[in-house]
Amino acid sequence: MTRCATFADLGIDHVSVITTGPWTTEGVATLVEAADQVAAFDAVRQRKSSQTVSAPVEERAMSKVICDLSISADGYSAGRNQTEERPFGDDGGDGWGNKLHAWIFETPEENRAEVDQRAVPSAFIMGRNMFGPLRGEWDRKWTGWWGDKPPFHAPVFVLTHYPRDSQPMDGGTTFHFVTDGIEFALRQAREAAGDGDVSILGGATTINQYLAAGLIDELRLHIVPLTLGGGTRLFDGVPPLNLEQVESRAASSVTHVTYRLPRDTRRTS
Amino acid sequence: MTRCATFADLGIDHVSVITTGPWTTEGVATLVEAADQVAAFDAVRQRKSSQTVSAPVEERAMSKVICDLSISADGYSAGRNQTEERPFGDDGGDGWGNKLHAWIFETPEENRAEVDQRAVPSAFIMGRNMFGPLRGEWDRKWTGWWGDKPPFHAPVFVLTHYPRDSQPMDGGTTFHFVTDGIEFALRQAREAAGDGDVSILGGATTINQYLAAGLIDELRLHIVPLTLGGGTRLFDGVPPLNLEQVESRAASSVTHVTYRLPRDTRRTS
Repeated sequence: MTRCATFADLGIDHVSVITTGPWTTEGVATLVEAADQVAAFDAVRQRKSSQTVSAPVEERAMSKVICDLSISADGYSAGRNQTEERPFGDDGGDGWGNKLHAWIFETPEENRAEVDQRAVPSAFIMGRNMFGPLRGEWDRKWTGWWGDKPPFHAPVFVLTHYPRDSQPMDGGTTFHFVTDGIEFALRQAREAAGDGDVSILGGATTINQYLAAGLIDELRLHIVPLTLGGGTRLFDGVPPLNLEQVESRAASSVTHVTYRLPRDTRRTS
Repeated sequence: MTRCATFADLGIDHVSVITTGPWTTEGVATLVEAADQVAAFDAVRQRKSSQTVSAPVEERAMSKVICDLSISADGYSAGRNQTEERPFGDDGGDGWGNKLHAWIFETPEENRAEVDQRAVPSAFIMGRNMFGPLRGEWDRKWTGWWGDKPPFHAPVFVLTHYPRDSQPMDGGTTFHFVTDGIEFALRQAREAAGDGDVSILGGATTINQYLAAGLIDELRLHIVPLTLGGGTRLFDGVPPLNLEQVESRAASSVTHVTYRLPRDTRRTS
């Protein structure tokens, strides 16, 4: 077996990895280490003198707008009549709101890749109804459903019609309140994310607005084996879309499907 | 390695296999042959003198009512405004009606198991709109969309409000017209199927009626990467269901998911 050149052999001491993959900082470090071992990147060989190389990916340098959503087999992500006690609304008394997310909490090992992926984005956007049950003016303290240390660890832009000061939380999450609509919120989130991805968290009503505006690049659906028969539904009011299935994987009680939305994704209709 | 007793060794010359699997006659023959080689069935050892043995399956002797349906990512199986020229209705001029079934025709090898499964049932049921574009009285000749030799090769019970004589076709398909409702059609289909499965072919409106009545045992969905935004939708008007995901498999441009519907499948709501 031939020993391959390492980056050091090639006189390279700094590598930028530009990838569309959902890499964490650790992931990138591992990738670079692997690349060093095998000198796998064409770019490395082609540009020996360069101090910066890029992975030879075709679609490059794009931070993505993704959406990661658990839905029922009939496409709902939440029921009707949300209250403070019931963030997912009517659940017929049998807790399907929790069942929709059981794959995350009850079988994390089996779904490790998908669970990890949810935390990768560098900024998040959510609708006000996902943030909380309050409507109208912010007339009492509410800092989300997630306690003092929300699981986002990044800026979260909350869509609302009512201005409010930013709300820093423990663990790196700050809630910013955006009153200028979905496109403005996305611009702010992109800016905050830098090279990172932006995740539209939900609910489905918010996601549908972004889908209809053609602003989502990737849809990661977790299809759970139950139906709800009512509530907020993914794709409602969204014009017909051509999707590209880029990944699909079954776990024991959920099917993960990732769709890419081509840039010009709307069909004639 | 010990040589195992064969059925012949045990004095058994006839074996009935009772299984919930989707076995064809050839499949059963193979199964019995395999069982003969290894004398695998407990029943064989326990009942040496019996002339008839059963496979020791827990849930047994059930012919199933299955439904096998290609749907868009937003749950539609057909569009609005069906006509004779367009069995799937409005398709926005870009032929998504065909795209919904492209996995069958364009990538049969990759989807062999699912394609084969579709032909296994011993009797079929379909709604009148799946059978054809005619409405009201049968005032002109129509024998389905499938030409002289439809791909069912078995009795097909067509739900209609207008009586009509049975219509035999080439290749073993006979269309029977049932005017007494979905339960009666299922009884007739079960009778025709004997030990075989009954398949509710569609459209979604018909399937939804059977789902709402709790009459479907297994739902085999083929989720295709596009959305339609309108048409006939699976699960519409069906009360909330608990499903059991029994299989899920991705092909390159479709995700196959099989749900079992527990007998008492409706949730409190």
